[in-house]
Amino acid sequence: MLREWEFQIQLDEQSDKAIYLQIADAIIQDIHSGRLAPGNALPGSRNLAQRLKVNRNTIVEALNVLLIEGWLVSKERRGTFVASTFPDFKKDQPITVTYASIADSTSRPARLQIDDGHPNSKIAPINELARAYRQIFNQKARWRLMGYGNELGELEFRRTIVQMLNHQRGMRINEQHICITRGSQMAMYLTAQCLFSKGDYVIIENPGYKPAWDAFEQTGAKLLPASVDKDGLIIDDVLAYLKVHKNIKAIYVTPHRQYPTTVSLSLKRRLELIKLSNKYGFTIIEDDYDNEFHFGYRPILPLSSVVELNNYVYIGTMSKVVAPALRIGYLASSDATLIEKVGRLRKIIDVQGDSIMEQAVLQLVKDGTIKRHIKKATNHYKSKRDITAILLKKHLGNKASYLIPEGGLAFWIVPKEQVDWALIAEKLNINGFNMITPDNYSFDKTVNGMRLGYASLSEQELEECIHMLADLFTNI
Amino acid sequence: MLREWEFQIQLDEQSDKAIYLQIADAIIQDIHSGRLAPGNALPGSRNLAQRLKVNRNTIVEALNVLLIEGWLVSKERRGTFVASTFPDFKKDQPITVTYASIADSTSRPARLQIDDGHPNSKIAPINELARAYRQIFNQKARWRLMGYGNELGELEFRRTIVQMLNHQRGMRINEQHICITRGSQMAMYLTAQCLFSKGDYVIIENPGYKPAWDAFEQTGAKLLPASVDKDGLIIDDVLAYLKVHKNIKAIYVTPHRQYPTTVSLSLKRRLELIKLSNKYGFTIIEDDYDNEFHFGYRPILPLSSVVELNNYVYIGTMSKVVAPALRIGYLASSDATLIEKVGRLRKIIDVQGDSIMEQAVLQLVKDGTIKRHIKKATNHYKSKRDITAILLKKHLGNKASYLIPEGGLAFWIVPKEQVDWALIAEKLNINGFNMITPDNYSFDKTVNGMRLGYASLSEQELEECIHMLADLFTNI
Repeated sequence: MLREWEFQIQLDEQSDKAIYLQIADAIIQDIHSGRLAPGNALPGSRNLAQRLKVNRNTIVEALNVLLIEGWLVSKERRGTFVASTFPDFKKDQPITVTYASIADSTSRPARLQIDDGHPNSKIAPINELARAYRQIFNQKARWRLMGYGNELGELEFRRTIVQMLNHQRGMRINEQHICITRGSQMAMYLTAQCLFSKGDYVIIENPGYKPAWDAFEQTGAKLLPASVDKDGLIIDDVLAYLKVHKNIKAIYVTPHRQYPTTVSLSLKRRLELIKLSNKYGFTIIEDDYDNEFHFGYRPILPLSSVVELNNYVYIGTMSKVVAPALRIGYLASSDATLIEKVGRLRKIIDVQGDSIMEQAVLQLVKDGTIKRHIKKATNHYKSKRDITAILLKKHLGNKASYLIPEGGLAFWIVPKEQVDWALIAEKLNINGFNMITPDNYSFDKTVNGMRLGYASLSEQELEECIHMLADLFTNI
Repeated sequence: MLREWEFQIQLDEQSDKAIYLQIADAIIQDIHSGRLAPGNALPGSRNLAQRLKVNRNTIVEALNVLLIEGWLVSKERRGTFVASTFPDFKKDQPITVTYASIADSTSRPARLQIDDGHPNSKIAPINELARAYRQIFNQKARWRLMGYGNELGELEFRRTIVQMLNHQRGMRINEQHICITRGSQMAMYLTAQCLFSKGDYVIIENPGYKPAWDAFEQTGAKLLPASVDKDGLIIDDVLAYLKVHKNIKAIYVTPHRQYPTTVSLSLKRRLELIKLSNKYGFTIIEDDYDNEFHFGYRPILPLSSVVELNNYVYIGTMSKVVAPALRIGYLASSDATLIEKVGRLRKIIDVQGDSIMEQAVLQLVKDGTIKRHIKKATNHYKSKRDITAILLKKHLGNKASYLIPEGGLAFWIVPKEQVDWALIAEKLNINGFNMITPDNYSFDKTVNGMRLGYASLSEQELEECIHMLADLFTNI
């Protein structure tokens, strides 16, 4: 015979949890702790009800829950027992829960971020976007939109992007040549996963865009850094690699405005690169990350628009045009089979994109909002660029060199002397600015330059920051 | 001396493209086609202006574009020439663009989808969601939301999910133990990529959930199918594998309501599985895909809530509660280091989640909308389940067996005789219903059963479909 089980419980009538569930959980606790052992008989429901001063039905419900969940078994005419078939556990310590704030754990608070060319969120077409969402939510068959969608993106949205690429960027594709992604990073990831295997080589620009490299290396592919000068990627470097390595699958380039140095790839080198790609059979992965904001005559047409190029993946984004939080990018390729492969992988990764957002952005494209916004934003950014150029000349004119970019949202600033970037970053941080240190752009930690995104800072903040840089370039 | 270049161009004053760009592009065409060769001199701008009957400034602008883009070079006092440094291309045919509709290419049109348990989009809380979006777009510092976010999900959103998991599902985690994902599929993908390498083994339920298997196999891991009976996963199968294979890294289970058979894993087997996991050191990946809609006393608490379990990944989703198009899932683990790893990979895949949507859903959680919706939807689905049960009894009572599920949005129907599922699917298709054939749930193509999602079909559609099944089960 077993000794009497002393059931102790503090019932809380204010709790969200029903009384019968509180009782059930307390019994589970007692089974866990060993106070109730396998095979033990429970007191009758009338007895328990009296002890806990609750309605007998409440006890019956609690016991029912435990019977359904398998903690208890009911034996006809004999009563209710703790199930006898639990394996033993060594008693572990429960996990201690500490609600440490993650926000508190970052090293030092900084007021402002010197980013690498983010758009100005304050001029994002938010009212228009809100209107588009409202219209979608108000439309009659709106619930259709709430169902599952296509892994390559909604057909109409793809067609609209295709039309834009064909009309404005000289491409020749249809909707079977494109996959809509969550921003350009996912386009990079999908491309890498579908093109590369372990042991493959990918030529990259150095300095260049590390998040793309991370996506490539994730496949086990190896990176081959080619240098960049005032005409962009140096083709001789590419050629040298091609002569040594057999498994060069692709080259990743930012020809329109090289990241981070902002130089454009010269026409001569463009055509040489295309010729090499055709000859050696590697794919040109063209990241056209800031085609949208251009201050000169027109953006140079993508490499991927050149009829002669056989193998390309063209990556673009709408995030900068609308708002960074709206992650809409795309990848296009002449190779529809590659896009099918991308679609299959995309389904495995996250099923589909955000069809509500695609619908909202589609509306903004159709009603001309995007076009007007790009025009307005381009004017805004052009004058911001001009202001930045004046500030740079005033404070850094004889201490650093830089191009005045014909588009995009950043300057590349190269101090005339080699400086200690870690120290500069630290001093800026103390004064309330976070900067991205040059090793973030570099394959081999030798680059001497910083990217100054001018769009998201105010004029005053820009002047403060540039003035501070002038001091630091001199005194460090 | 070169023979005269005959410049032919049809200028279109109605076009979106400026006249000077039309001229520039026509010259590029002529360079491409070889009508203008490297080194050829261009006529002077006055001459060209006369020939094309345009203002001379228009020509000057066109030539400027070409000089900037590198197609032409200007030699002092001698004029403008085609750049001499282009590599030769074999002339390829341009890609022919055909706008074939992808929608047309699916095999046969079907009016209705018999899905595997989708929610009813028509009862999604769309008005409330629209209101939440409106409020977000109207708030003062709304542009902050438009910037870049955290790869694990917004802190406040994570805290809210953590609170829900701790309070309602007995878990003991904090915000460092969770990553918000694009639906549960991405949670599966991230888990697999961070836990498995080529050559590892993963035990799965058979029949089971193939999209998860696809995510696991993507890593090069191998699947070991364990059978399922009326008490869920058979532990003896698991034990047999553990005795043979060393590299068993994880087991993927749906204990709450097994997918696709809807049976619950018995408490005894739950505890045995936990014990095996602790003994052999493999991770339990628990997919709690339909915890939300439960018609009985309460959902059984997750395996992951059991204090004794050392290694788990718990995967859930909000997509079914709000709307499938809103892809919000999460993965939680006792292992904060794993979550860090997941965060790093997530950043490579798509940088971050959808912070605007997270904000909107957060609002719905905070103001009680989600709670009310779950209550309302549960009632709705319960009566739909009851109707379906009546229909099944009426038409299929003596031809098939099935459980009446205590929650979730689907029945698992097993015909008493083995039937030809391919033929049944074809006949249903002819009559306007698409079904998911049983091989989609099966590791080895032997399962005899179909999943009938009852939530997204109307009562009439359900009756039509079940009636048709009764005919097909008899006559095939």
